[in-house]
Amino acid sequence: MKLWNKGYTLDEIVEDYTVGRDYILDQRLVEYDCRASITHAEMLHEIDILTENEKNQLIKELKNIISLHKNGDFKIEKSEEDCHTAIENHLTKKLGDTGKKIHTARSRNDQVLTALRLYYRDEIKNIEELINENIKSIKKLIDKYGDIEFPGYTHTRKAMPSSIAMWAGGLRDSMRDNLDYLKFYAKFIDQSPLGTAAGYGAPLNIKRDYTAGNLGFERVQENPVYCQNSRGKFESGLASIFKLVMYDLNKYASDLILFSMPGCQYFSLPDKFLTGSSIMPHKKNPDVLELMRAKYHIVVSLENRISSMMANLITGYHRDFQLFKEAIFEVFDITHASLRISANIFDSLKVNKDKCEEALTDELYATEKAYKLVKQGVPFREAYRQIASQY
Amino acid sequence: MKLWNKGYTLDEIVEDYTVGRDYILDQRLVEYDCRASITHAEMLHEIDILTENEKNQLIKELKNIISLHKNGDFKIEKSEEDCHTAIENHLTKKLGDTGKKIHTARSRNDQVLTALRLYYRDEIKNIEELINENIKSIKKLIDKYGDIEFPGYTHTRKAMPSSIAMWAGGLRDSMRDNLDYLKFYAKFIDQSPLGTAAGYGAPLNIKRDYTAGNLGFERVQENPVYCQNSRGKFESGLASIFKLVMYDLNKYASDLILFSMPGCQYFSLPDKFLTGSSIMPHKKNPDVLELMRAKYHIVVSLENRISSMMANLITGYHRDFQLFKEAIFEVFDITHASLRISANIFDSLKVNKDKCEEALTDELYATEKAYKLVKQGVPFREAYRQIASQY
Amino acid sequence: MKLWNKGYTLDEIVEDYTVGRDYILDQRLVEYDCRASITHAEMLHEIDILTENEKNQLIKELKNIISLHKNGDFKIEKSEEDCHTAIENHLTKKLGDTGKKIHTARSRNDQVLTALRLYYRDEIKNIEELINENIKSIKKLIDKYGDIEFPGYTHTRKAMPSSIAMWAGGLRDSMRDNLDYLKFYAKFIDQSPLGTAAGYGAPLNIKRDYTAGNLGFERVQENPVYCQNSRGKFESGLASIFKLVMYDLNKYASDLILFSMPGCQYFSLPDKFLTGSSIMPHKKNPDVLELMRAKYHIVVSLENRISSMMANLITGYHRDFQLFKEAIFEVFDITHASLRISANIFDSLKVNKDKCEEALTDELYATEKAYKLVKQGVPFREAYRQIASQY
Amino acid sequence: MKLWNKGYTLDEIVEDYTVGRDYILDQRLVEYDCRASITHAEMLHEIDILTENEKNQLIKELKNIISLHKNGDFKIEKSEEDCHTAIENHLTKKLGDTGKKIHTARSRNDQVLTALRLYYRDEIKNIEELINENIKSIKKLIDKYGDIEFPGYTHTRKAMPSSIAMWAGGLRDSMRDNLDYLKFYAKFIDQSPLGTAAGYGAPLNIKRDYTAGNLGFERVQENPVYCQNSRGKFESGLASIFKLVMYDLNKYASDLILFSMPGCQYFSLPDKFLTGSSIMPHKKNPDVLELMRAKYHIVVSLENRISSMMANLITGYHRDFQLFKEAIFEVFDITHASLRISANIFDSLKVNKDKCEEALTDELYATEKAYKLVKQGVPFREAYRQIASQY
Repeated sequence: MKLWNKGYTLDEIVEDYTVGRDYILDQRLVEYDCRASITHAEMLHEIDILTENEKNQLIKELKNIISLHKNGDFKIEKSEEDCHTAIENHLTKKLGDTGKKIHTARSRNDQVLTALRLYYRDEIKNIEELINENIKSIKKLIDKYGDIEFPGYTHTRKAMPSSIAMWAGGLRDSMRDNLDYLKFYAKFIDQSPLGTAAGYGAPLNIKRDYTAGNLGFERVQENPVYCQNSRGKFESGLASIFKLVMYDLNKYASDLILFSMPGCQYFSLPDKFLTGSSIMPHKKNPDVLELMRAKYHIVVSLENRISSMMANLITGYHRDFQLFKEAIFEVFDITHASLRISANIFDSLKVNKDKCEEALTDELYATEKAYKLVKQGVPFREAYRQIASQY
Repeated sequence: MKLWNKGYTLDEIVEDYTVGRDYILDQRLVEYDCRASITHAEMLHEIDILTENEKNQLIKELKNIISLHKNGDFKIEKSEEDCHTAIENHLTKKLGDTGKKIHTARSRNDQVLTALRLYYRDEIKNIEELINENIKSIKKLIDKYGDIEFPGYTHTRKAMPSSIAMWAGGLRDSMRDNLDYLKFYAKFIDQSPLGTAAGYGAPLNIKRDYTAGNLGFERVQENPVYCQNSRGKFESGLASIFKLVMYDLNKYASDLILFSMPGCQYFSLPDKFLTGSSIMPHKKNPDVLELMRAKYHIVVSLENRISSMMANLITGYHRDFQLFKEAIFEVFDITHASLRISANIFDSLKVNKDKCEEALTDELYATEKAYKLVKQGVPFREAYRQIASQY
Repeated sequence: MKLWNKGYTLDEIVEDYTVGRDYILDQRLVEYDCRASITHAEMLHEIDILTENEKNQLIKELKNIISLHKNGDFKIEKSEEDCHTAIENHLTKKLGDTGKKIHTARSRNDQVLTALRLYYRDEIKNIEELINENIKSIKKLIDKYGDIEFPGYTHTRKAMPSSIAMWAGGLRDSMRDNLDYLKFYAKFIDQSPLGTAAGYGAPLNIKRDYTAGNLGFERVQENPVYCQNSRGKFESGLASIFKLVMYDLNKYASDLILFSMPGCQYFSLPDKFLTGSSIMPHKKNPDVLELMRAKYHIVVSLENRISSMMANLITGYHRDFQLFKEAIFEVFDITHASLRISANIFDSLKVNKDKCEEALTDELYATEKAYKLVKQGVPFREAYRQIASQY
Repeated sequence: MKLWNKGYTLDEIVEDYTVGRDYILDQRLVEYDCRASITHAEMLHEIDILTENEKNQLIKELKNIISLHKNGDFKIEKSEEDCHTAIENHLTKKLGDTGKKIHTARSRNDQVLTALRLYYRDEIKNIEELINENIKSIKKLIDKYGDIEFPGYTHTRKAMPSSIAMWAGGLRDSMRDNLDYLKFYAKFIDQSPLGTAAGYGAPLNIKRDYTAGNLGFERVQENPVYCQNSRGKFESGLASIFKLVMYDLNKYASDLILFSMPGCQYFSLPDKFLTGSSIMPHKKNPDVLELMRAKYHIVVSLENRISSMMANLITGYHRDFQLFKEAIFEVFDITHASLRISANIFDSLKVNKDKCEEALTDELYATEKAYKLVKQGVPFREAYRQIASQY
């Protein structure tokens, strides 16, 4: 044995390398896989693979797994790799031969796809709810402070007068667009892959419309090859939309960091969003905002990871695809946590009216001055030059 | 002067660095900018900034620029930076004070945004047309060869029988989805920014609905801050959709490279898509397919560039945004050229029936054998194990 | 309270968002931070901030923490954020006022930098050892199979005869270069930041050479601003070297996946590196190799994340930097695990001599034929054309 | 013919797609390829493939091409694809059969690699020179303004007093490290691939040491497979170092943008580095700095492109590799232009002493106050808390 194996057997090393954190990550798929399996069992009964009794036994035990899972009592062993194996193992242990029938007419490939899409559907709804919360918080901010004017910037330089209503309204409108986009995309990928097996169908006369309908899918994803080839593709697309949501937060976090620094102080944040320094007694740092800014880049890199990892591979499943799971889960988690924080921030944000007014210095009105000349008949470019010579 | 300045003045160095290739790239915006300027002039007349006569003069000269441009006779000097300056300069040179009025109530910021979105609209239509061409070519391929069976792969290993219809149909369905996605997104970003000036509005009572309607926009992008903040965001989103289109080509190029190599040869390509080696007399290499595969990564990196470049910046325009233009133009060009080539490839592709049949070796039917046992009442997992022991 | 807060207080939400997984990740820094703190205490004694007794107490307790940590008994509470706070808290709890002195003349900023660099130094050594193991395994492979000839490919097409010695030697040489590169870089970043505090020095007359020497650093990183600005920069550089190491594995994994597929089968892997399918009884899939290929892209994306996250920020520490930690740790872990697996693969790899020989078909010798004509005096390009006409 | 082919023949479409801009890009390789070809001809004479006379003719004509090229008179036709074909065509046209002999014992693959590495060597030297210019400019800045104190920031918040010497010295030290790194890497990749042909050697007894020595390479890259596999790998590594150089500029550009905004104004830049707005008469915008900041991201994305494009491909040349050329050339160009600009900026930068002093507000000395208590015997953490309560 190699020195650096340090007590691991090769089997353990291989298991570690292949399973990775899947057995932990898959906890969030347990319920979705059970729901899909219930529908699958019903369909197998419809096509006479399962008897009425077998179907009922399977459904009862699958519901039991959902209960166990909700109480934190459904374990996935590392040696089982993932929730799908753990669930089949559980069924076989409890129901013997009946359990061994559940995997008829499907492959782990379409099974994973199905569970993931059901999961995405729910998670997207959560994100939509959070976006709505943000829109509400922004609305309250505008109700409270909207009329206050403060400088609008271009090139990180004072440009023209803006207002809290205009500034915050920019985010509100962008969030509304995010919502529309997300709704479209959720529907767009809401296609049932169940029954396409390993990407080339199953040699049995199954009812795909039946399972798709029962699981609430918008439509059946007919072509089995497309089902496998859309793995990664759908995730990459999803990540790119979440990236755009995070981009809005990145920008407004950047605004708040700058606009609350000494020399601006248009905004202030309650202390609970600020942290200190280990050496400098006076510091109050906008760590929460900095992390919101930074986490955008995690999402960018995760989208890039999926897009790059899925390429240069022929049609059909590859084990590489397994690694999309961790990436897309992290995209969800970051977006979720960031939107939760940002809504709280917009709720707590204080606008300092005096600092805003103080900052409305003369040069911000240069454009207005030029337009006064325009109204007097001076061609704009002429007016512009006259005023420019004063600065 | 520094040794390494090698005869350049500082002004030239700065001009080189700031203008870059903008003055060349902007050729493709000339017509769009003129069309937007015509509408803008009409609106300025509506609000009494321009007289009837001034408006007519401007429109005539803008149409003249469009003609000059179509004949390749409209030059943008490097010192003018971009098409917007070149057009205003032209108008002023021709029309004097009237020309100096065209920039009233707008900024280069909303002007660029408007021209770009009009350009995107047309380019997306071209891409849609090309996707449709691909779908047609795939259909013809299926009509001709669809029934031929050949191995389906998972893990780059023979898995189960597939067919040309299933394989090509996977791409067709994916392309249809691409089309739906693109149509949604085209509409989604079809918002008129004209009249938001530098991102904080203009101190004049302009008619944004009027210009938006005349230019055929779906809706007005009301909030001026959102207009500026959506720059980059809309482009990043657009690039990510084109990335998904290119992903399909990347995958099918990968398929064709592998499936036409010795030992497979399910497909062959006409010689005009193949190139030779400078040293090896026998080589026929699939360069076109390799480049189609590789160019996907250019699009991935351009999307990543935009996403990364636009971050960590406060609200409002920054010069950094100027660099999105080259990136998104390249995304369009690559996708356009690749789809044009791929449609031609699907038109010319030859399926070698004998090689396909030869490759349908026994192990591809292992699953079918298991299902025969299933139909005899053996639980699937049991049947699986019985058959597995034979391999 | 918001509906979606679901029982969390705002403080918990903020803590979750800011601390993240730091308190878990930091377990691997505990020993390094203690070692740096021991040296720091010695220095503080040298400059009369600590008495002999205080110094000894601190060192004793820091060594105690190292022991606790090795037994898995040193806990970092989430509320403590990181190991640095946990260690200071522990010292203060045990030693009272003496514990409160340990943070004199340093900031968490230089403290983190120091611990990380000591950690990198050790981890790089581990990676170097693993690269050496790979080189040894490759050497054994060459000793055993080196003489066997098999086709060399260009454009995924047979090109000219290659051999196992040439193929495996390509990796060996690349790994040797990786080793040289890593050794250079390890030395390059082996600069002591200790004593630069928050990036602007500390108003005390400390001895930076003393601590740097004791901790075995190559040199002192003099400029405090550079210390902070090199955070992320050094990590990005490190990630890019590990990326190149992983690239070699990506390529050879790609080789082995293709070269062991039916139609090639030049290589075979023992069953323990292969896995089955849930539906297809006959499948033996190269999952380990596929994951080795895929994990390269994780490293690429992590490097991209660091590079993108660190940009557009002014001089000095930002909380964004905290997120580099998780990224670079993952880069280490992936590279470590992958090199461990790859050495085992090269140890177990079987070359199928008969398949190799079978594949040496006539066209591979086309170049040789051309060179025979060259030796007879035919100009190369002429000879090339003569032979080419035969294919 | 398809509607959308719009008058192009398929051959033109394929040529466009495969050649791309290679025939333009390759202008910068002409001289390097000729120099390598001269050495190659000398070697062919040494091994009796060329007569003395043939060798002399070839060398004379290759030198002639270098002259033509220097005068801008050496054309590469699009149909020739690249400089290598154009040069061989030229030789054959001028020298007949002698020209047809130049390609003996090499392939375009090793020929391209050789020309690129010679080109990299020169370009790296240029970049080194520019880094040295920057170091000199920074030194002058420190000589002039070094003693001026101004606030040091962490978290974009005032932290502790810094100075121009400390701030600028941070960049100087980082640039010195960049220089060391670049020197190492230049040597590291200075390996001669000439004579490895298409990646599997040439069936002739050539003298690789001879050509490597004549071309000034550090060493021979022995293994032909490694030669091909290092394509992309060496470029990716190179891009990542240039990325780090650009990172320094990104940071100092970010500093200068912020530190020259109203409310700071520690620095000012001469007007020639500033540009105006098309609508706001008062604006002076730091476009040059913004572009320097933004162009970092182009380099990040180009490195990412190379890294992602080169993956998941088996050993040996693929046409995908051709696309590295444009990417790495752009990396060189951006880094070159940016360093040229930055040296000019440091030469012209004005430090506003009064604004710097004004900004040194009380809270910057909080840490110093704590240390005064430390010197009086108060444990640091205690002192910290006492002072913190004052803020």
